[in-house]
Amino acid sequence: MKSDLVLLGHGSGGKLSHELLDKLIVPILSGIEQREQNDAAVLAAVSGRLAFTTDSYVVDPIFFPGGNIGSLAIHGTVNDLAMAGACPLAISVGLIIEEGLAVSELTTILMSMRAAADSARVRIVTGDTKVVPRGKADKLFVNTSGIGVIAEGVEISGSNAQPGDKILISGTIGDHGMAVLASREGLDLASNIVTDSAPLNDLVQQLVDGLGCRLHALRDPTRGGVATTLKEIARQSRVEIILQEPTLPIDSAVASACAILGLDPLFVANEGKLLAFVAAEAAEQALSILLNHEFGRRAAIIGEVSAAAPGKVRLRTAVGGLRAVEMLAGEQLPRIC
Amino acid sequence: MKSDLVLLGHGSGGKLSHELLDKLIVPILSGIEQREQNDAAVLAAVSGRLAFTTDSYVVDPIFFPGGNIGSLAIHGTVNDLAMAGACPLAISVGLIIEEGLAVSELTTILMSMRAAADSARVRIVTGDTKVVPRGKADKLFVNTSGIGVIAEGVEISGSNAQPGDKILISGTIGDHGMAVLASREGLDLASNIVTDSAPLNDLVQQLVDGLGCRLHALRDPTRGGVATTLKEIARQSRVEIILQEPTLPIDSAVASACAILGLDPLFVANEGKLLAFVAAEAAEQALSILLNHEFGRRAAIIGEVSAAAPGKVRLRTAVGGLRAVEMLAGEQLPRIC
Repeated sequence: MKSDLVLLGHGSGGKLSHELLDKLIVPILSGIEQREQNDAAVLAAVSGRLAFTTDSYVVDPIFFPGGNIGSLAIHGTVNDLAMAGACPLAISVGLIIEEGLAVSELTTILMSMRAAADSARVRIVTGDTKVVPRGKADKLFVNTSGIGVIAEGVEISGSNAQPGDKILISGTIGDHGMAVLASREGLDLASNIVTDSAPLNDLVQQLVDGLGCRLHALRDPTRGGVATTLKEIARQSRVEIILQEPTLPIDSAVASACAILGLDPLFVANEGKLLAFVAAEAAEQALSILLNHEFGRRAAIIGEVSAAAPGKVRLRTAVGGLRAVEMLAGEQLPRIC
Repeated sequence: MKSDLVLLGHGSGGKLSHELLDKLIVPILSGIEQREQNDAAVLAAVSGRLAFTTDSYVVDPIFFPGGNIGSLAIHGTVNDLAMAGACPLAISVGLIIEEGLAVSELTTILMSMRAAADSARVRIVTGDTKVVPRGKADKLFVNTSGIGVIAEGVEISGSNAQPGDKILISGTIGDHGMAVLASREGLDLASNIVTDSAPLNDLVQQLVDGLGCRLHALRDPTRGGVATTLKEIARQSRVEIILQEPTLPIDSAVASACAILGLDPLFVANEGKLLAFVAAEAAEQALSILLNHEFGRRAAIIGEVSAAAPGKVRLRTAVGGLRAVEMLAGEQLPRIC
């Protein structure tokens, strides 16, 4: 690259665009030297049901402890596919770059995307790059879309939670949201908190293989946190969810930071955690699978499903009270993903 | 919707987000009343090669004569799939909204997206919505990704142009770029120019059905225009392309506006045109298919492929000269798509 900064002309479709693509974006993301310049990638023949997902990432700042907007975008899309019980097949990357972004920062982010894709064993197969003038975006927005293949017999859905199910979480809550917030605001009290951003497809594959049809629902509690995600599933499956507050795993630094800032960790975003709804008799096996996986070491059984009050989520507190959990109206932490 | 403007809280993942999705975005885009809240859409089983594409749209202004950012995004992704010879199957929509966008404008754009998808007979199956604070984006950015299925035996690629091929264009050049520019700059001289944005999948299907393996390459000349697109194909297929300038169809208003502004229409973006490379003996049949289709009424045979100077594009002018066509270095018209 001849320039240290991304210029408006890098989004023109002309020579500068081709230089940006051929010298930087395509070699890093795809691992191939010469791109096939077709408008669409052609994938090898597949057979089966497909999962298809998209997410745009506007996280501020674009670098935060433990990750950046690029790794976050890959993990997010891999996880959305995994939560449908799909094996990720291919990912697309759409970049909207604000003129003036340092090429060195873009390079770091692209390399993180590639590393994240490699670790999830998924290929980045197609992409698009736009550049907008200074002040018309905020450094970098990333869209990742993904295709996955769902194996025969796998039926995992947020509408499939059943009365009697146990609910597991794969680890501590609120890490990602607090890491981004601390980084954005320069909070010393939380400077040691690191995002949990991670690809969960391998963990999901182990659950699918181990539990079969006793695995009913999966969801990653991202924006809105564990509380909002459980509320969605309670509505979608028309069941009641009872959470046991003392069982919720939480990192002590996250708990302290939330307490000082007046934030409820139940509503803080996670980017490498899953909630699993499993038949009661499979709960211990599910817990064991999670605990033995690098991304499930602090997993716990945190609640159960009942038929009593469809659509409700309630939290049994440490002192034995039962408190209703509702969605927040608006924004607790903006631009967290 | 309780608010006339999109608020930051509409991107929070909480109650306001759910209201925006359930009351506006999902009913309009998908035509279903109650969304399945899973993170990924599950598509019916398919069998065959898939095409996969993504594009982000940052066009300024978001409304222009004959279209808006929403219809443009759907047409663009449908066309990218069609240029791979794929039948569009499903589209995802990622919205990045600047806080303060009028809900009425968003509604109009969403309705245009739905109408565009319906007319291309493709379903919008999944999406994502983010809201960023005022001044951190420019009204609305749209990402559309798409999946298509490629029928057996179809082998269309930008690397498949062959010496002897005739090159056809499906209509006039430069309409989209000039319509957006005129709208952005308030140019009276070009106020009657309308975008050519249109879905080309049906037209491509007719070419595929009619020409079979005599149809070698397809590409829609968007950013960078006809010149840049032909240069890409000349390089990719390692062939020379000779254009006959007098045969290039151009609307008289576009030609006048380009002349006054000093723009070369060969480099101005199109959003509803295709370039087709076909075996010489199939050229007349291809032209007839184009001319009989609503999106090909001003089609023409504009050039041919030779083996003489791989990677070169040359233009034979009206007076018989032969001029080299190169890509522009940077930006002729920024934010045109």
